[in-house]
Amino acid sequence: METESDPGLESDVFARNCTSRPVLQNLAGRWGILALVALREGPYRFSALRRRVDGVSERMLAQTLRALERDGMVHREVLETIPPRVEYTLTELGAEIADQLEALVKLVELNMPRVRAAQDAYDRD
Amino acid sequence: METESDPGLESDVFARNCTSRPVLQNLAGRWGILALVALREGPYRFSALRRRVDGVSERMLAQTLRALERDGMVHREVLETIPPRVEYTLTELGAEIADQLEALVKLVELNMPRVRAAQDAYDRD
Repeated sequence: METESDPGLESDVFARNCTSRPVLQNLAGRWGILALVALREGPYRFSALRRRVDGVSERMLAQTLRALERDGMVHREVLETIPPRVEYTLTELGAEIADQLEALVKLVELNMPRVRAAQDAYDRD
Repeated sequence: METESDPGLESDVFARNCTSRPVLQNLAGRWGILALVALREGPYRFSALRRRVDGVSERMLAQTLRALERDGMVHREVLETIPPRVEYTLTELGAEIADQLEALVKLVELNMPRVRAAQDAYDRD
């Protein structure tokens, strides 16, 4: 088990105080997955990313990107254009994580007929 | 884009109303990941699973398992023992998803030193 005072120990998400838990939450949360998978398509400006991640509020996307930037998944760059633009890209680590998340998303999308059948059976009971 | 009235269309988690979104949230949420990855270890009774997923409340674990059962990821069986016991196992689909989640968890755990370095750099700025 890892605690914040023992950063040398191996990470274990099953341990309540493990510092890997909030990291996992940031990237696997509702908007973290979609933002990271979208950024596999290439760099995005904030407003374009917000359109891609259909349904996310400005506040939630900003919060999500800040957490992912702090965790080293996303790189935020201010481009010196007029007016200045902010562009988001995946870091090397973010790209590895995003590939894994993409595989998860595809697996879920592919299996939605099975999921729907299970939901129908559950709701009938 | 898929809506609830068009169940035949291909699933797309980027579409706001796609029915795959809540499914993804159920399994990738805070407790969904941990419950599914824990169940890769074998069947669990509720109380043992709650000990394994350190820090989850009874209410949250029950809610998580109900959602995963409805989505066809988890099988809930009442064993006719005295007293009766309830046991949770992964379905075939749940096992596929859990393998994917396990790979994600391992990737995050493995990269925690990189994440911590990024967090330190971010917090210094």
